[in-house]
Amino acid sequence: MQHIAILGSTGSIGTQTLQVIEANPGYFTVSVLAAHSNDVLLEAQIEKFQPELAVLTDKSAAERLVSRYTGKTRILSGEEGLIEAAIHPATDIVVTALVGFAGLRPTLAAIHAKKTIALANKETLVAAGEIVTKAAKDNGVAIIPVDSEHSAIFQCLQGIDTTSINKILLTASGGPFRTLKTDQLRAVTVSDCLKHPNWSMGRKITVDSATLANKGLEVIEARWLFDVSYDQIEVVVHPQSIIHSMVELVDGCVLAQLGLPDMRAPIQYALTYPKRSSANFGRLDFSAIKSLTFENPDTDTFSALAMAYEAGGKGGAYPCVFNAANETAVQAFLSGRIGFLHISEIIRHSLDAFHPSDSAITLESLLQADAWARERATEDIVSLK
Amino acid sequence: MQHIAILGSTGSIGTQTLQVIEANPGYFTVSVLAAHSNDVLLEAQIEKFQPELAVLTDKSAAERLVSRYTGKTRILSGEEGLIEAAIHPATDIVVTALVGFAGLRPTLAAIHAKKTIALANKETLVAAGEIVTKAAKDNGVAIIPVDSEHSAIFQCLQGIDTTSINKILLTASGGPFRTLKTDQLRAVTVSDCLKHPNWSMGRKITVDSATLANKGLEVIEARWLFDVSYDQIEVVVHPQSIIHSMVELVDGCVLAQLGLPDMRAPIQYALTYPKRSSANFGRLDFSAIKSLTFENPDTDTFSALAMAYEAGGKGGAYPCVFNAANETAVQAFLSGRIGFLHISEIIRHSLDAFHPSDSAITLESLLQADAWARERATEDIVSLK
Repeated sequence: MQHIAILGSTGSIGTQTLQVIEANPGYFTVSVLAAHSNDVLLEAQIEKFQPELAVLTDKSAAERLVSRYTGKTRILSGEEGLIEAAIHPATDIVVTALVGFAGLRPTLAAIHAKKTIALANKETLVAAGEIVTKAAKDNGVAIIPVDSEHSAIFQCLQGIDTTSINKILLTASGGPFRTLKTDQLRAVTVSDCLKHPNWSMGRKITVDSATLANKGLEVIEARWLFDVSYDQIEVVVHPQSIIHSMVELVDGCVLAQLGLPDMRAPIQYALTYPKRSSANFGRLDFSAIKSLTFENPDTDTFSALAMAYEAGGKGGAYPCVFNAANETAVQAFLSGRIGFLHISEIIRHSLDAFHPSDSAITLESLLQADAWARERATEDIVSLK
Repeated sequence: MQHIAILGSTGSIGTQTLQVIEANPGYFTVSVLAAHSNDVLLEAQIEKFQPELAVLTDKSAAERLVSRYTGKTRILSGEEGLIEAAIHPATDIVVTALVGFAGLRPTLAAIHAKKTIALANKETLVAAGEIVTKAAKDNGVAIIPVDSEHSAIFQCLQGIDTTSINKILLTASGGPFRTLKTDQLRAVTVSDCLKHPNWSMGRKITVDSATLANKGLEVIEARWLFDVSYDQIEVVVHPQSIIHSMVELVDGCVLAQLGLPDMRAPIQYALTYPKRSSANFGRLDFSAIKSLTFENPDTDTFSALAMAYEAGGKGGAYPCVFNAANETAVQAFLSGRIGFLHISEIIRHSLDAFHPSDSAITLESLLQADAWARERATEDIVSLK
């Protein structure tokens, strides 16, 4: 029996993780559930899964829940509650499904508490890949990717010596605007973005998929997860999202992982790793697959992807700045304050304006860079209004 | 340094194996070369690779070579020479690249001599899968597949618990006549067959690819190599031959191996296994791959595939009969004595006429069944003239 803590239990990955746990009776128990502010859904999850601890980081949402809840689960709130959720002694595996940079501190806390990490919060590795991977190594902790692309690569690399990797072929659907050019993107709306062709995901990541910033974040995530250089990571646009990613080995052989676009498959693999258990999330039917196609990404139009490589290549706090500017801009776009193309403009401005300090990268320096980039991006947003 | 014996060194797989050995200086030496009758090519190979032993099974070809050869390599002939070649003490890995049932005895001899087997002779497992896999197990010998499809599956299964296999998806190009129906196949010639769309192979296997008998043989080979049942093996027609085969796991995830259609890749993997070494046999370029497509096989038109499943399902000596009838019919087709469609008719007659004995399967009973089926098929060929 594995004891699972879910940080971000009311989001897309969190709810699907609970579906996986339900679909595997006797394999898992839920030790901890943590969410931001959705007290109604969290309460229903507490009823069903009876965790030892539940946390809402939003203090007023937590107060609402505490005022009506009469069960046995301990309820905490705020950032300090989230850290408690990450390090709870009963937990074996922490599923980090928080959105954005907010996942960094609890993920690090879970690593220091020697929990296995099922990583669904890519921003953690983007912003602080060096710190996080070093902490995992020092603590003997496995980081198992939940992102479908990175899970695919991780699955392909089982039984493979890492010195045999030539390059990683990170597939991308290309998003809902794959065939559009810059002029056609000027007027796209939030609801246009949210019509993703293949995957059902949260709002932030769906916008990131439309700008290809998501693929850029995944490139940086892959660099840290698989300890490869950026020129060993190639993005291949594959609109059908059937091949979830590939690895080219030194002898030219390519290994790939394929499946239906269903996040429950990589979630289950992360929870059962290194084993696999039966699942009925649907199966590929090759006679029904008409065609799998491949294209190069259009980085002229979708410049966020090129900027992610640029930030990754510069290293230090640049990826953290890339991420913070993107998060801030996407929030502004989702709330209707800026247009779609402004997202990449804001990232560009932040990367250009950033002056890294000469000192070594620490959690504090990354928090400073993150705060600086958010402020810088917010100024941009205000000036654009 | 690994010492390699090549049985069938002058054929397609044999010559490509020598290319792999040349391309990896310092990794391999050639201990033994054995061929059927091509004394001229074998002599050139002896000059270049200086094996300790060389064998020509054809005695007059061996006499021609001995009469003019003055070097240090020992030269033997006949079936007994081939067995010596299989068990030579200096050898680590035996590449069994003989064509047809003739590969069975030397492969078994090599297994009993505890050599690692790089298996390019699928008929060995088709005719005597139970005996061969049991001998390998009893002797602690690894059988590493060289067939591109089986190498793909073997590569996908590294790091996978065999209880996690749901099914094997064996890909097939569909051969040169994939889109034709029975009426259109009546008049096809040997040279039509030899225009295989993707792979450069020997003559026998190229005809087998055109009838889909080759895929049938591969189904039976897969059953023994991976210890799965026939209903766990599904043939998927994939005309581009880029995906070399796939495995569907119990959780619905599919692992695939992809590459250019170049036999040197699986040959090298078999020789370097479990490691990989760099190779420059060409790389996949996904931006140049227009489309990967999939179809169900047309087993009404290409009935040899359905008959292979039938023979496999019946078990015992039936696969041996399937193989012997096919080998005999293909030889007759290659020498212009029968038409293309007669190949599957002759297999059908042999399977229908075969009456298995009740006793256990032994090497002797298989040799008898093989001889019976060849005689039966030869009678058919004579009556068709």
